This record gives sequence, C-alpha cells and structure tokens, in this order.
Amino acid sequence: MIRVSVIGATGYTGAELLRLLSRHPEAEVVSAASRTFAGKGLKEIYSSFQQAKEISLMNPEELSDQQTDLVFLCLPHGESMKAVPKLLEAGVRVIDLSADFRYRSTKLYEEWYARPHTAKDANEKAVYGLPEFRAGEVQTARLVANPGCYATAAVLALVPLLKRGLIRSEGIVVNGASGVTGAGRRSELEYSFCEVSDDYRAYAPVRHRHTSEIEEQIQDLSGSGEVTLLFTPHLLPVKRGILETIYADLAPGTDEAAICRAYEEDYGATPFTSYLPNGVLPELKSVVGSNNCLIGSAISERTNKAIIFSSLDNLIKGAAGQAVQNMNLMFGLPEDTGLPLVANYL
Amino acid sequence: MIRVSVIGATGYTGAELLRLLSRHPEAEVVSAASRTFAGKGLKEIYSSFQQAKEISLMNPEELSDQQTDLVFLCLPHGESMKAVPKLLEAGVRVIDLSADFRYRSTKLYEEWYARPHTAKDANEKAVYGLPEFRAGEVQTARLVANPGCYATAAVLALVPLLKRGLIRSEGIVVNGASGVTGAGRRSELEYSFCEVSDDYRAYAPVRHRHTSEIEEQIQDLSGSGEVTLLFTPHLLPVKRGILETIYADLAPGTDEAAICRAYEEDYGATPFTSYLPNGVLPELKSVVGSNNCLIGSAISERTNKAIIFSSLDNLIKGAAGQAVQNMNLMFGLPEDTGLPLVANYL
Amino acid sequence: MIRVSVIGATGYTGAELLRLLSRHPEAEVVSAASRTFAGKGLKEIYSSFQQAKEISLMNPEELSDQQTDLVFLCLPHGESMKAVPKLLEAGVRVIDLSADFRYRSTKLYEEWYARPHTAKDANEKAVYGLPEFRAGEVQTARLVANPGCYATAAVLALVPLLKRGLIRSEGIVVNGASGVTGAGRRSELEYSFCEVSDDYRAYAPVRHRHTSEIEEQIQDLSGSGEVTLLFTPHLLPVKRGILETIYADLAPGTDEAAICRAYEEDYGATPFTSYLPNGVLPELKSVVGSNNCLIGSAISERTNKAIIFSSLDNLIKGAAGQAVQNMNLMFGLPEDTGLPLVANYL
Amino acid sequence: MIRVSVIGATGYTGAELLRLLSRHPEAEVVSAASRTFAGKGLKEIYSSFQQAKEISLMNPEELSDQQTDLVFLCLPHGESMKAVPKLLEAGVRVIDLSADFRYRSTKLYEEWYARPHTAKDANEKAVYGLPEFRAGEVQTARLVANPGCYATAAVLALVPLLKRGLIRSEGIVVNGASGVTGAGRRSELEYSFCEVSDDYRAYAPVRHRHTSEIEEQIQDLSGSGEVTLLFTPHLLPVKRGILETIYADLAPGTDEAAICRAYEEDYGATPFTSYLPNGVLPELKSVVGSNNCLIGSAISERTNKAIIFSSLDNLIKGAAGQAVQNMNLMFGLPEDTGLPLVANYL
Repeated sequence: MIRVSVIGATGYTGAELLRLLSRHPEAEVVSAASRTFAGKGLKEIYSSFQQAKEISLMNPEELSDQQTDLVFLCLPHGESMKAVPKLLEAGVRVIDLSADFRYRSTKLYEEWYARPHTAKDANEKAVYGLPEFRAGEVQTARLVANPGCYATAAVLALVPLLKRGLIRSEGIVVNGASGVTGAGRRSELEYSFCEVSDDYRAYAPVRHRHTSEIEEQIQDLSGSGEVTLLFTPHLLPVKRGILETIYADLAPGTDEAAICRAYEEDYGATPFTSYLPNGVLPELKSVVGSNNCLIGSAISERTNKAIIFSSLDNLIKGAAGQAVQNMNLMFGLPEDTGLPLVANYL
Repeated sequence: MIRVSVIGATGYTGAELLRLLSRHPEAEVVSAASRTFAGKGLKEIYSSFQQAKEISLMNPEELSDQQTDLVFLCLPHGESMKAVPKLLEAGVRVIDLSADFRYRSTKLYEEWYARPHTAKDANEKAVYGLPEFRAGEVQTARLVANPGCYATAAVLALVPLLKRGLIRSEGIVVNGASGVTGAGRRSELEYSFCEVSDDYRAYAPVRHRHTSEIEEQIQDLSGSGEVTLLFTPHLLPVKRGILETIYADLAPGTDEAAICRAYEEDYGATPFTSYLPNGVLPELKSVVGSNNCLIGSAISERTNKAIIFSSLDNLIKGAAGQAVQNMNLMFGLPEDTGLPLVANYL
Repeated sequence: MIRVSVIGATGYTGAELLRLLSRHPEAEVVSAASRTFAGKGLKEIYSSFQQAKEISLMNPEELSDQQTDLVFLCLPHGESMKAVPKLLEAGVRVIDLSADFRYRSTKLYEEWYARPHTAKDANEKAVYGLPEFRAGEVQTARLVANPGCYATAAVLALVPLLKRGLIRSEGIVVNGASGVTGAGRRSELEYSFCEVSDDYRAYAPVRHRHTSEIEEQIQDLSGSGEVTLLFTPHLLPVKRGILETIYADLAPGTDEAAICRAYEEDYGATPFTSYLPNGVLPELKSVVGSNNCLIGSAISERTNKAIIFSSLDNLIKGAAGQAVQNMNLMFGLPEDTGLPLVANYL
Repeated sequence: MIRVSVIGATGYTGAELLRLLSRHPEAEVVSAASRTFAGKGLKEIYSSFQQAKEISLMNPEELSDQQTDLVFLCLPHGESMKAVPKLLEAGVRVIDLSADFRYRSTKLYEEWYARPHTAKDANEKAVYGLPEFRAGEVQTARLVANPGCYATAAVLALVPLLKRGLIRSEGIVVNGASGVTGAGRRSELEYSFCEVSDDYRAYAPVRHRHTSEIEEQIQDLSGSGEVTLLFTPHLLPVKRGILETIYADLAPGTDEAAICRAYEEDYGATPFTSYLPNGVLPELKSVVGSNNCLIGSAISERTNKAIIFSSLDNLIKGAAGQAVQNMNLMFGLPEDTGLPLVANYL
C-alpha cells in the first residue's frame, strides 16, 4: 500500500482526490490537512463521505513525513513552492496540483503569475506530469507538477498534429469552455448559482495563464519552434467538464486520415486518451466522471482549417485523476489502477 | 405618471422591480437608492439594463420626499421599520417588501423574527397587500406590507377551501420548493453554483418564518379559527419559481367540483390567480415570468386527502410583481397595468 | 469471476449497470443484449464507454445460458415476466429490475400495473431485494426482484420507525422528488430539455404505482398492520437523485433520540444506509454517484409530526447499484464489492 | 391596431411571438394556426397563457386574408415558400421566420438547404429584416425575411468592423453557442433533458447553414468583397441565448478605440444593439428576455487578433422579437414598441 497524504484536502480538487483514492486498491490515505477545517472530520465538510472511513483533518504543520510515501499538494498557486523544498528534503515524493512547478522557465512563470518563484532548485527537478508524453520521466520523478486542466486538453490535442507538421503553428485559436468547479470552492457572488445558472460567458480573454503553459509544453513536446496562440476560456453553467474547440490552419496535404493516424500513433497504447474516428465529436457527457481525454476533429475545406475538439473532466483528467495516474506511474502500478475508464454519461 | 422611488434597488427584488417598472406605462422611477452601490449607474451593476434609460444609484439618505408619490422598500427585515415612520410622516405612500409590517400581531413578528418591533404605530396602519382578498384596503392604504413569496402561494391556495369548510384545518402540511433567487443576492458558499446545481434539499424544517405569516393570514381571511400547520421549504436548482404541494384532510362530502367552484368563485374575477380544472397541475414553467398564481388539485380517495398545488414566480407574484399590482390599486389603475400575464414557459 | 449477462443493456438502467460492472473486481460481463441496437457495439451508443473494453450488443434470443451465472433483466414492466421462467429453468439466477416480481400479491400487481401476471410460479420464488432487511433471503435466491427507486427510499425511511411504533401508521404522506433519469431513456416531448429545464412539477398524483409497492413492503417488514399512504412524486430538473420528504404523526413519547436509535439499530451494521444525526439533512449531492441511502429527520412539536428525509441515487441504490449489491450477496461476496461508497458531491 | 395572424403558432418561435404580441399595445392577434393542434385552444398547449385572452388554433387553410394586415410565418424551411406567393397576392404583408427568403441568391439557398427554391419571384421582393442596417427597406417591404439567430449575432458583430477595414476579411472564425430552444420544439432523444443537461457539444461543424447567410449578408452590407468564414455552433445546456466568440485578424493600426467608435457610429442611434465599452463582455444573462444584441471585444496583441463577443436571445432578437421589430417598422410605429429593452438577468 502506498501511504499518501493530501494537503489542501477540503477544496474541490482535494475532495475529488480523496474520493478517487477511496476506491484505489493500492493507496491508503494516512493523513489529510486543511488549514480551514483542521480538527474536524471530512464527513462534516462533505456529506458525500458519510459512508466512507472517516478522515480527520489536521493542520498542515502536524503532518508527519515518516508515515508518508507521497504527498499530494492541493494548494493555491504560490503556496506550493513554500511547502515543496522541505518535503523533498524529508525524502517524500510530491505531486503538486498547483501551477508552481509546471514551467521549465521560471521566468515565464513569474511573468504570467506575477510573483517571484522562490523554489527554483526544486523546479529544476520537477517533471510535468502528462503521462501520455512523459511517463518515463514521471516514473522516477521526486516532484511531479500536475498539469492545468485547460492545458491538458490543449496539449493532448495539439502535439500529435504539430510534431508531424499537419497543422501550421501560427494563428492557432483555442476556444475553451469549462464547468464551474474549475474555479474552485468559491463563495464570490460571481460564482453564485443565480449568477451562473442559465448563463454562459467568456472570462480572462487574451490573458489566461494557461496560455503560457500550453505554449511552453507544445513547443517542448512537438519541437515546432515558438508557438504563440490565442486562448479564450468560457464559463459553462455546469459543474464539471471542459471542451476545447481548437482552430488551426492545415498544412498542405493534410487530410482526415493523416489526423486520425497521428492520434492513433500517439495514443493508441495509452489507457485514457484517444481519438474518436468517423466524425464523432467528444462532448462533456462522454468524459465527465472518467479520467479520459477524448479528441475529435473536422476539416473545413472552404477555409482550409482543422477544428480539433478536446474534452475531459476538469476535476479528474484535468486535476485529481491525472494526479492519481502520475502516482500509479511513480509507484510502478499499472497506469489505470483505481481510475474510472467509463464516464458517467448521466 | 406615478413618481416612484426604490430603496434597496440592487438586490434581486429591487432589480426585478426596476425591470417591471421599465415597462409600466404609468409609473416613472424618479430615484433609486443602494447603500452598496451609491454613486454608480444601474447598468454597471446589471448589464441587463444596458439598453434602458440609465438610473443613477444614490444613498437612501439623499432621496427627496418631495418628488416621490410612492416608495418601494426592498430592504432586509428590520431595516424597513426604521425607514417607514419618517416616510409616512412626509406624506409618501409606501410599499414595503420586507416582513416588518406583514403581521397584525407584532408579538408574533417578534417571536418569529427574533427582534423587537420598533414601529408599532405604523404597523397599525399597514395593509397586508394580497389583492385577491384585500384590494379594497390596499386602494386606500398609506402603507402596504407586500406578502412573502411562500405565504402568497399558500394563502391563495388555502383560504378558499378553509373558509368554505371543504378541508379540515388540523394537520395541514405545506411542502414548498423554491428557486434560489428566493434567498436574495447572496455570496455564501452554500448558494454557490457548485453547491446548488443538480442538488435539491430541504432547509429550515419546522421553523421557517413564513409558517407564522401563513397561519395568521389564513385564520384572518378564512375565519377558520386557530390553524397550526407544518411548512417545509426546499431549495430547487433553478433561479425562479415556487411550487407548493399542500396536503389537507378532506371534510366530509368534499369533491373536485366543490373545490373547483370555490376557487372560481374567489378568483374568477381576478386577473392573475386561477384554478386549473380537469386535473391539470401548475408547474414552474406555467408561471415563471408572469405575475400569476396558478392552482391545481387532486383528491386521494384512498387516504381522504386533498392535494393542492400552488405555483408562482417568487420574484414577481411573490415579490416585485405583487408590489406593482398593489401600486396599481393604490393609484386607481387597472390592477394588471404593466404586468406580465403570460409566463415565459421557455 | 461471476459471469453475468445484461438484457436491456442500452436503457439508462442497463447502461448504468454496465458502468458499475466495469469497475467490479469479481464480475465479468459475458454478454449484453438490446433489441434496438443488436449488432452494434456499446461505444457507438454511449461514447462514455470509449476507453472500456468493447461490448457487442446481441439480440436477447442469441444469449447462451451456458456461459452465464447471472442475468440482469433491465426490461420494461411486463417483459420480464415473459423471460424469467425460461431463465430459471435453464438454471440461471436472475435479478430483475422491473416491477414484475416485486409483489408478494400478484393481485396487487395486477391492480396497479393493469395487466395480468403471467408468471405466478416464478413470483412465488422471488425475493424482494432490499438487502438492509432481506440479506439472508437474497443470498439463496434464484430470482431477486430489485426494488423500485422511490420504494427503496421510502421503505428504508419508514420501516425502522413503524416497527417500533414511533410513528403512527395512519396518515403518512410521502412527498417525493426525482431526477429525470427515473423516467428512463425517453424521447417524448415532455422529457425534452426545454420542457424540463428550470421546471419542477408533480406527476401521477394519488396513483403512482410505487405507492402499492411501498405499502406492501412496510406492512410486511414492520408488522404494522395495513398501511395506506399518500405518495406524490415530482420531477426535478436534474438527471439523478431522489429526495423524499415524509410526514408522519408522532406516537406519544417519541423524541429525536428514539428516532436516531431506531435507525442506528437497523442500519449501523449495513454498508450503504445510515442516519445523519444532529439535524443534518440528506440532499441529492450527499448521495448521487454512490450506492448510499441517507436519512435525516426533524420533529415539529407544534404539529406533533416527524419529518423524515430520505435520499438516494435513483440509478444506483434505486436501481443498478442495488442490483449489484444483490449480486454480491447471491455470490457470497462482501456486500459492497465494487460499489461506490462516496458520492460525487460535485 | 395592426391585425396580425400567426401561422405555425405552437412551435417555440410561434409561442414566443404570441407571448410578445400579448404585451404589444398596437397589435392584435386575429388568428393563429397550427396544423398539429387545430381545434384546440392555446392554453391547452401552453399553460403559460392561462391568464391571457384565449386564442383558438385553426388550420392554416381556414385563415381569412380579409381580416389580416400582416401574417407571421413560423413554418419549417421549405413550407414558407409554398405559402408566401398566395399571401402576397391577397395583399397581405408577410414576415417569414424561416430561411426561405433570406438569400438574395436563390442558388446559394438551394445549395445550402438542398432543395429547389420554388418562389423566386417572391424572393426578388423580399427584404432581409435586419433593422440596424435595413430599416428603410423594411418600412416599405411587403415580404420581410426574418434573419437567422446565429446570423443576426454574427452580422451585427462583423459588419461595422469589416466595412471600415478594421479587421481582415480572410480567416474569420465564428465560435457560436446557443440554447436548446434554437433547435425548436423537438422530441428527439438527442434533445431530451438527460442527454443535454450538464452537457456541452459542438454540432454541424463546417457545414451549418447559417454560414452562408452570414457570408452573403456581410459581403452585401460591408462591401468587403467575398468572405469565406468558419462557423462552429455548440449546444449549451440552457434554454435561451446565443453567445458568439468571433476571432479575426486585426488590420494594421486598429485599436480598441477604433473598434468602439465603429460600433457607436453604427448602433448609437438604434434601440436594441450596442457595444459595451471598457472591456465589459456580454453574456447570456445580459440579453436573455430582451430584444437586445450586445457586443464586446478584446484585443490580443500577442497574436494580432480581435475577439468580438456578440450575444442575444435566440427566441427574441434572434427570432420573434426581431419579427415584431420589423412589424413596427412596416407599420410606422416606433421601432421598440412593445418590445423588452431590459433583460431578465435572473
């Protein structure tokens, strides 16, 4: 049994992680910390855990490193980099779900997150935990930076086509739409039911931070040189799920068969990501509740563009599920151990 | 033109009132006050008013009584009773949308609202503004207490049957369900989208304040002696609308025809309230967007009970629309002037 | 490995069952039948199964009894009783999710389902599969009748109180509310998104069939003599989840402690059902996604009534999950094998 | 009073039109036809009309031209062109809400709608009823083709920029998202509540018919030469509202001030359409319930693109409301007579 601890256990990502771990046959939650709810039991915060084994919430400071093989950090950006160096020193492996260690270039991080990076040494050792492309690195990593939700969907959709030159790297537009859990456990008026229900809106146009994460990763993974793309996120009146509609100019000669082949080559042997052939398009209900990322496409001959659709559950493949997938790799388990392969649909 | 002012203009009830007034042919909003947003324009707070004439928000203290024929108070319970005496002295008529003047018995108010009533003189003059039963009183009132949303639905459903002795007054159960706007403009976590969407829950069981409002009114209007009933509200994952499912024991001999007749006698000549015959049941989409209250019923012979269904839009007939209806009566206009008679359905 | 077959695999209950079975460590789906989609693969009907092992859909007639230890029947009422006798003869055990074998009294079935019962011999052997009260019978059953969704919630809520005489058996009112999946995979206009979204409505008042199922079971399990109750279902604008608000007159002397004790005695040792103490009330998000049934209560001293709240996921504890729970018992597995104990919450 | 008839009165567009007309001070519905529901009253089909004057539904054939000044046709594409010539001959003016008369080029219509155009003479006389650009033509028209919902939002967003050369006409991408009423009153499984709720999906990629309508109109209105654009619609889990996110390459020198000025010049004097300055973005709740089209924008300097956001209520400005707006113009009334200028927000 892998002995895991979760810090930041009562945010939505932390709670989802505990839910997934409750069905994991090879991992055991030995401690869970929440600054806000220290001293309480998890059932008191989330009635959904009523029938599970009670988990007592402690202060992060009380966690004992000795008992833990792996710590999941579900902390706000900026908080993780304070905690990580000490954990690594204590010999504990870490999966960090914040953005703090997602960038190879801390300069890029500092620019887009508007704060200094205070753990650059640790950052050197961090592996960007996207198993479809970095499973080998993840297996031996001491520190895994769990990718952003929008970034996971975009990188998985774009890399196979860019690295084969099937689409042009200039002028890519990523139109994203996400469920509200993507914003976390929030009590601001703008996330209240009456403000979000029956609504649909764009937010953070031209400056969402995942833009830079996507760009750095696709450059790195596809070798396509500098990519500058436009990402526009939207808020859907649903709790979970991301669908990205990605527009790119076709390279000469690219057809549907080539696109299909690229995805099958890259993802045919992976458990969670795949391409839907024959014009089938992914939608939220194809993925929500699972750790899957499903991709589909259409070609517009009139405008010489490819439209790539990429969909996943922002709390699972976009956060807690991918973190468990990374844990599985780090501890030599089959990649899909304990993870849902079938979406809820309903 | 009736010159009206709205105090508490930026809560959901205040905003809905301004929306309704924007289409009223005989009323003009001369001022609107909001302590939170004083100094701003309404369009800045509610983009939905973008194409309407701008309304500047002032501090309540800045309102000038001279220019105003009628003040609508959309304030929290407890705040209205501070403001009303001065307004009445200044000769302004008032429609108060809080609970402060809804009770004939201030003792009852003090008991259920857990605060002293500090405007008992004004309370003596207040008329409970339920036009279906008190149109005459409303016409001449200086101070109208606009009924509660749940109370409106329950009183309209129960009085015709109780006053004719068609149901027994003991053991009545009111199972209510309301959209989230009923809680007002709230930023608490429990009203956030992720906590409410796809959920359904009871709240404030056995002690919701409208219980006492309903009881006092049905006793007063039906002459049925003391009534003690059980009211259980539930929160629906929708923005607007109330449906109450009311259970009552049948008096001997009561049949559907008698029930139908009772409602038709009481509401046949009113513009907004009516009974749906032939087993048709009201539902949210029959009423949301309109000022209507629709009532339906079924009889259970096996258990000798009547089930009465009563539905309305909590923001319109349950608040702002009924307030405009009261205004129309107070100023000698046809009762339905400027009010929507057709629900949105979609 | 238990070799199971699912007949009626593409309705919502069938699909949910296949989803649950995909994570069951001791069961293997050897065949799945769907008259409508025979010849197709499951992934084509439900994209949510994209990453799972493909399941080919056959005609029910093509199923081979030899390979199967257990058949789940997810057929419309009336169809199951045609199929069951042959399956039992062939030595296959059966869990039937229709209402066909839920009644001890076929006369009652015939009355409420308005069709003759054509498999009375099989019905003699059927066990009503509510493990909280009939685990022993289920273990040895050849034919299990899986309870109705509303019935499960009501019976679990009422039996502990009735059998101890804590509430009176006369005058019980069950106000139910269910998500739309309860109606199955339906293309009628009344279940279209535009007709259901933002709406809330009662249906089938005073004559819903589960009334009789609840009555027969609580009489049988509580020994309380004849019970005639009033059940009114409502349609919620959500996909999943049932919450029942049950009103009953208190017997003299009943207090909250007694109610709490009753539930803890009956359910303390069961994995999925429990009572929430301290006035905590169950809600949809406490149970949806899990096989749990959570119960809470409030006491109204003013009216001398108990209000019992009972909540479950209609597709899981109300259908497919309870079926798997019954399978576990029939094959000697721990009752909670492969079943979710933590609700989705989000 | 304008005497109007509505043919196709019971589809969602027809019903919304009747709802809007119920509050129009200068129009009277003299007849309404529905092939499906002929002989019934409107209240039986839509309980939302319960408190309005009853409207009896007749067969389209029974409509008498003598009593009618204007006919609204809410028929499926292909049906309108059968009905229009006779109506025009009878001297009745017509507003057609189908696509049959929206194209100057019937060849284009035939290509995208895959059917022959059988009323080319009538088509010669048709005016595309987008009042922001064609108010003069509409005033004198005998036949108005009411624009498509997506097309209205896109054309209003693009024309001011294209005709001033502020954006390039090549490579425009329109990412659209619409509520489900856009699909009409449909009972197909894919529009059922359980399939749409909590979901979000693209449909008809690269071949949605509004593509051609948008292209023909923006070419015509902006004089920008041939435009070929990519339009991808998505289905939102809401009933009403469209938001389009439009991506276009900036022409050299274009800045936010120029964009703002363009919209203010074109829409400053129109009642329903306007530009939100200062980076405010339109969203569904800014427009749903009103006849408004609100436009916002952002500039991405990194990618040299403009993002234009355009939002409206598909049933009002995108259909029935714009039809009433056209009627107002045709009969010499102020353009906004009887139309909602304030959105519901809640």
